[in-house]
Amino acid sequence: MRVAFLGLGLIGGSVARALRGALDEVELIAWTPSGDGPRLALEAGVLDAVAGDPGVAVDGADLVVLAGPPLACIELVQRLGADLHAALAPEVTVTDVASTKAALTAAAARAGIPFVGGHPMAGRETSGFDAADPDLFRDRPWVITEPVGGGEPEAVRRLALACGAHPVTLDATRHDALVAAISHVPLLASVALVEAVAGTRTSPDAAWPDARALAAGGWRDTTRLARGDARMGAEIAVTNAAPIADVLRRYRDRIDLFLVELERAGGPDAAQLERRLADAAARLAQDP
Amino acid sequence: MRVAFLGLGLIGGSVARALRGALDEVELIAWTPSGDGPRLALEAGVLDAVAGDPGVAVDGADLVVLAGPPLACIELVQRLGADLHAALAPEVTVTDVASTKAALTAAAARAGIPFVGGHPMAGRETSGFDAADPDLFRDRPWVITEPVGGGEPEAVRRLALACGAHPVTLDATRHDALVAAISHVPLLASVALVEAVAGTRTSPDAAWPDARALAAGGWRDTTRLARGDARMGAEIAVTNAAPIADVLRRYRDRIDLFLVELERAGGPDAAQLERRLADAAARLAQDP
Repeated sequence: MRVAFLGLGLIGGSVARALRGALDEVELIAWTPSGDGPRLALEAGVLDAVAGDPGVAVDGADLVVLAGPPLACIELVQRLGADLHAALAPEVTVTDVASTKAALTAAAARAGIPFVGGHPMAGRETSGFDAADPDLFRDRPWVITEPVGGGEPEAVRRLALACGAHPVTLDATRHDALVAAISHVPLLASVALVEAVAGTRTSPDAAWPDARALAAGGWRDTTRLARGDARMGAEIAVTNAAPIADVLRRYRDRIDLFLVELERAGGPDAAQLERRLADAAARLAQDP
Repeated sequence: MRVAFLGLGLIGGSVARALRGALDEVELIAWTPSGDGPRLALEAGVLDAVAGDPGVAVDGADLVVLAGPPLACIELVQRLGADLHAALAPEVTVTDVASTKAALTAAAARAGIPFVGGHPMAGRETSGFDAADPDLFRDRPWVITEPVGGGEPEAVRRLALACGAHPVTLDATRHDALVAAISHVPLLASVALVEAVAGTRTSPDAAWPDARALAAGGWRDTTRLARGDARMGAEIAVTNAAPIADVLRRYRDRIDLFLVELERAGGPDAAQLERRLADAAARLAQDP
């Protein structure tokens, strides 16, 4: 089996490392715009070859894994339906590992390529092939979305299983709504918190140097997502804007309710606040 | 030296455990409304005695550590200035380990008791004496605020050093503004996120069961603070309402800016979003 990676950072690199460890008979080749990740992966014995352009990478591949930021993946499926189309093997399936699925699936359908979206539900705030970990996806869900253009879901299922993940089938639009809630809004909330507390480049907060000297684990955890890859985050937001906005508006309304309570004439009601906090803690405690 | 604890949960219990390990000649006594924490601490050899009421606990103590939720601490300083006043030794200093300082310091000044506020900058989402850890404060800042009523800052400084923390002197109002930003607003943001995504008891979100099955480390970290003690969180909000509201309003405005960007006619601007995300990541990377 020949697997081609277009993109090879934290997620793609972790998939490549997992495949190298799990499968005896697999040929791994990769291309990225800079070539940095593939060079490191070749030196590490993870790849069999580095491709100088995406056409060489996908030539004869059984599975093509798009592993760049979401907008970069959309550009690549457009090219796979156009100037790179001749390099695709007849039985190929193209998949991806990006955080948004509907826009990419629609682009693949328009491009007429055999596509099945995938999303391994794991991440880190680190990025790049250096941070790749073959066990990143172990025992995690790996979402597989509806095929378009004759893409073969079984090929993506085998990829997920080889990485130690458990495949979960979901429609792309359903996936996007769910991850808007549990991943994309938390990211933007985390960034907004940094902006509100530390200020911005053009309007830094004067108290931030003193505040950060006192910051403990709660601050670090709440802002961990804001340390991630900025381009990745921006392209996630652009390709999942409407579902994110839906949840973010509900979120803003809950923040407003806290403001109303804090500014209540006569002071906030401790019992009312305690009920809200206890309810939220109870809902989290139902975690599977 | 005799140290009396009024309250003995995660924070007070961790202080008691640290003192027991650090000081040879110290007598530790505690009272709490339920008596549960002191009983466990006595069995564990951390306390020398359990007091049946707060007057017995503070009788003859050199240092009194208020270690309950903020409103409970305010009630106790009122009682220490009234019915419990006769039990206080002439040279006693009363301190506390709560997350808000100005309201309690003002209450102590009104009650006419010798008080110096303290706040060890460490916490966990766990609670109760069971979770107490003698190393919780090691190498962490321990804020010490302005004395009132003849309270002795050096007594609190020695307490902080015995716990392995480094003392930091700050005005109570300055402390409250800084922790509103790095601790209290993150807590409310975390609770609001759970409400927006999981819904509430009276209005549960229908997608939450599916969403939580996909939730990964980012969700867990961003909502960790919402798992904490609800009464503690509510009393923090009540005793620091105005500084929290100031930061929370800025936070809400930053959330609104994301909503405007996500709903922009023609779609969000990826480059503009990437600049915002990169700026936030860069400000976090300046962490000391």
